[in-house]
Amino acid sequence: MRRTIVDIAKEANVSVTTVSLVLNDKAKSMPESTITRIKDIAKKYNYKPNHMAVGLVTKKSKTIGLIVPDITNNFFSELAKSVESYCNLHGYTLILSNSNNDSKKERLSVSLLMDRGIDGLLIAFSQTESMEKQSDFVKLLNKLDIPLVALDSYLEGLTCPGVSVHHSLGGYIATKHLIDLGHKKIACITGPKSFYTAERRLKGYFRALEEHEIPSQDNLVKEGNYSYQSGYDATVELLKNDITAIFVSNDLMAYGAYRAIQEQGKTIPDDISIVGFDDLIFSEILTVPLTTIRQQISELGNKAWDLLYQGLSDGTPTKEYLQLEPKLIIRKSTKNILKEGNDA
Amino acid sequence: MRRTIVDIAKEANVSVTTVSLVLNDKAKSMPESTITRIKDIAKKYNYKPNHMAVGLVTKKSKTIGLIVPDITNNFFSELAKSVESYCNLHGYTLILSNSNNDSKKERLSVSLLMDRGIDGLLIAFSQTESMEKQSDFVKLLNKLDIPLVALDSYLEGLTCPGVSVHHSLGGYIATKHLIDLGHKKIACITGPKSFYTAERRLKGYFRALEEHEIPSQDNLVKEGNYSYQSGYDATVELLKNDITAIFVSNDLMAYGAYRAIQEQGKTIPDDISIVGFDDLIFSEILTVPLTTIRQQISELGNKAWDLLYQGLSDGTPTKEYLQLEPKLIIRKSTKNILKEGNDA
Repeated sequence: MRRTIVDIAKEANVSVTTVSLVLNDKAKSMPESTITRIKDIAKKYNYKPNHMAVGLVTKKSKTIGLIVPDITNNFFSELAKSVESYCNLHGYTLILSNSNNDSKKERLSVSLLMDRGIDGLLIAFSQTESMEKQSDFVKLLNKLDIPLVALDSYLEGLTCPGVSVHHSLGGYIATKHLIDLGHKKIACITGPKSFYTAERRLKGYFRALEEHEIPSQDNLVKEGNYSYQSGYDATVELLKNDITAIFVSNDLMAYGAYRAIQEQGKTIPDDISIVGFDDLIFSEILTVPLTTIRQQISELGNKAWDLLYQGLSDGTPTKEYLQLEPKLIIRKSTKNILKEGNDA
Repeated sequence: MRRTIVDIAKEANVSVTTVSLVLNDKAKSMPESTITRIKDIAKKYNYKPNHMAVGLVTKKSKTIGLIVPDITNNFFSELAKSVESYCNLHGYTLILSNSNNDSKKERLSVSLLMDRGIDGLLIAFSQTESMEKQSDFVKLLNKLDIPLVALDSYLEGLTCPGVSVHHSLGGYIATKHLIDLGHKKIACITGPKSFYTAERRLKGYFRALEEHEIPSQDNLVKEGNYSYQSGYDATVELLKNDITAIFVSNDLMAYGAYRAIQEQGKTIPDDISIVGFDDLIFSEILTVPLTTIRQQISELGNKAWDLLYQGLSDGTPTKEYLQLEPKLIIRKSTKNILKEGNDA
């Protein structure tokens, strides 16, 4: 049977707090004999300090919660790995929870993690519900009495700090790259317009067109849901128009676009140039490696941890909202149509 | 300030145990006045039962640990998602830890998770160290006083239950499929031979050759490390031989093989047939969709949970080792060379 701190306290005839302080080397004004007695009993039962018990005394569990919308999306698994490495570095353990893009499960995860006595929480939101319902959730989050950091996206009304890639700048850079290569008939496959990330990236696309006096056209913007299939479907529709390039709001949808383009006997980049967003590992190993916007995942994890750690350390978290600069990764899926030959 | 169960116990002038029992509705022979007093105080502080505190009394934290070697490998992220869904279904929370294929970090994760007071542990081993060091780790694991389940692989000497896909059967089915299509010059790119999964899959390859009286050749077996690049490198070497097919021990290495084959101006499946192992989502969306061995991830997660839950429920876990049947998914990367036309 596993012995708990309660068993040791009973046997040593001291309080749970005393045992916890002794075993965590925080007993400063304790008789040496008591310390020895407690340590001997702990040794006898091969007992190791249990963070649950320590938590009751120090009110710290040394545990951080991270909620992501889809752990099977490589962007989020890479991000979780990065955040975890920073947690571990500072002696914290990461509890990962997957909301499955389900706002109900997301709220449940918050409750479960709070019950588990986490010291801090990071959330990459699922954002699949109406603004009205969202506002209730925001109220709840603003009331949490532990440091909270919004990751990758942000909800209106939140008072916590946050960090994401500068999504609209990413959309702008991607579109501007196509414009610089001579494209004027540039379509866009956006993610769900209700998603913070998608809405921002689309905004960047419009800004680049506007700055270069290229009129935007409603029929050249198709909404997908960030899945492979939706990228395929949107591309089939877009190819009915006279276009030379597509900015696709994530890499997975870009892979779908590849297939639709190839099925119609067209080639990338000779007929259609493509720029994606994410830089998943697979983008490099496609038959035609994908030009895309890289989200600096390690930097994102690092900054998120910094913001959280600030809150953990002094209890007065900053309200900062950081937007990291995205990077254009030029590969083989974009063609310069001002001159002969591939790419710039 | 966040109030703990200790604060409430003090204010109500009762023990922590009493508060825990009342707030978890397990106080059967308690005066009604005490119950009301405790609940009122809890309400005043907006206190919710904290699993850490409950854990001290019930010795259950309702938390399960899962250690995986690489959360960014889609096989493991899909598996984590599956296991988590079963945990949640039974009111447990999953703590995920990533060992990064580092056996030191794997041991540290075991300690950290045990400290966190988990009720049960699932490990998908990293297996990157010598058998000798492994045996120390096995001794430690066999001494754990909570239910443990080995996932995806197994270490010699373990006494806990386990579940994995039948790796050697998978290797056999993959190779037999190629033989049935008329191939005799079949190479193999294996994972690290020290890995349980790789060693078993390779065994299946040899068995299929032997059963069909095809002599195996040392120069047709190349060892990779399950990465894309190693699949590419191994294929470059293998193509120096007169071969018509390759069984590749995971999909990621198969993607590397694709690139090497294409770079040499050869085509899949006309010149070289390929069978992979894993069935990652990307295998379906390659230019030439990959024929591969599917690991039934959801079933794997389900069985692992069943084995663990048995241990959690009655404290006497089975020592069962389950091997699930893998499934051949035939797509477009294999060609029947007995007759004209593609595939069987």
